[in-house]
Amino acid sequence: MGRFHPEVVIVEALKQKIRDEGIVLSEQVLKVDAFLNHQIDPVLMQKIGLEFARRFAGQGITKIVTIEASGIAPAVMAGLELGIPVIFARKFQSLTLKDDLLISRVFSFTKQTESTIAISARHLTSRDKVLVIDDFLANGHAAKALIDLIQQAGAEVAGIGIVIEKSFQDGRGLLESEGYRVESLARIAALENGQVRFLDDCCAD
Amino acid sequence: MGRFHPEVVIVEALKQKIRDEGIVLSEQVLKVDAFLNHQIDPVLMQKIGLEFARRFAGQGITKIVTIEASGIAPAVMAGLELGIPVIFARKFQSLTLKDDLLISRVFSFTKQTESTIAISARHLTSRDKVLVIDDFLANGHAAKALIDLIQQAGAEVAGIGIVIEKSFQDGRGLLESEGYRVESLARIAALENGQVRFLDDCCAD
Repeated sequence: MGRFHPEVVIVEALKQKIRDEGIVLSEQVLKVDAFLNHQIDPVLMQKIGLEFARRFAGQGITKIVTIEASGIAPAVMAGLELGIPVIFARKFQSLTLKDDLLISRVFSFTKQTESTIAISARHLTSRDKVLVIDDFLANGHAAKALIDLIQQAGAEVAGIGIVIEKSFQDGRGLLESEGYRVESLARIAALENGQVRFLDDCCAD
Repeated sequence: MGRFHPEVVIVEALKQKIRDEGIVLSEQVLKVDAFLNHQIDPVLMQKIGLEFARRFAGQGITKIVTIEASGIAPAVMAGLELGIPVIFARKFQSLTLKDDLLISRVFSFTKQTESTIAISARHLTSRDKVLVIDDFLANGHAAKALIDLIQQAGAEVAGIGIVIEKSFQDGRGLLESEGYRVESLARIAALENGQVRFLDDCCAD
């Protein structure tokens, strides 16, 4: 069953961590603040970075773009492995237009607020081929806003790497319908009765 | 002059990066968004993590605490090397008191605003020995707020690791006067005439 391939080991380690330390708060919300988005497990992040690098190797990717704060750790580990810089978009509740900033807007369903995200135009050019990395994919709004920033710079989007995908929401469908390659390490089919069910649980062993 | 010691090589690489890519905006403000706090150089961050780990090795440190967003990359690399988790404090413009959160306040001179920072009490206990890591040390207010959070948890502060210290401000003096060990990799004596002058420039070679 390929269980001894390193990539399978990494994905299984991530899924086990989600089972062991993830907290299902509702049928929509999984809390992973024990190892991903508040407390961080650096060894797991290194493995995640290795796996992103393996999936997107050999494609001439020049930069990684992510969003503060939870995307930074997996993105930096992928950047280390691929040997390329990482840019993290900053979030603002409001922002006066400044020279030199590319700006987009994201609506957060979780927080029911719109925020502005920005990156400095100095760090992306039309010669860049960019990998987007984020901790979660739900409805795809954050990824879409990052893609918008990359396209404003005239750069190419090489794909989207996600640590945890909530496959019961429509983010992947939205991104794939626009032609983007999405690589999610853990894909969650449902959060029901306080349990995490992964998309591939049906086929294990 | 010890130039071939790995730790000297790392500090010199950081100083050279600051000379090459840092932008002196005023006599108070150094912009390093090309490699540290907006775009990140993962290879440099790995070296920085190694050097923090070397300086604080063998002291039984169990956790690293930093603050979003710019502290995360160096902290995660140090955590990887020391084999311990990293917690990043979250910033809020305002915050309603929630169960399970340790809270402190920081006044930012740069932004002239007060913000609230918080970490989950679940991730720190009185048995923890904590290394504080941050990208900059200026007046020490952010470090003091992080120390406050750690002490609220009853944990011990093992020391403070800083990537860039503005040695012409009083952060180090404040922290050392309270008995904390401060390890700053690059120490800036002055930002004058658009140039960075390091504290040890006088003694090079």
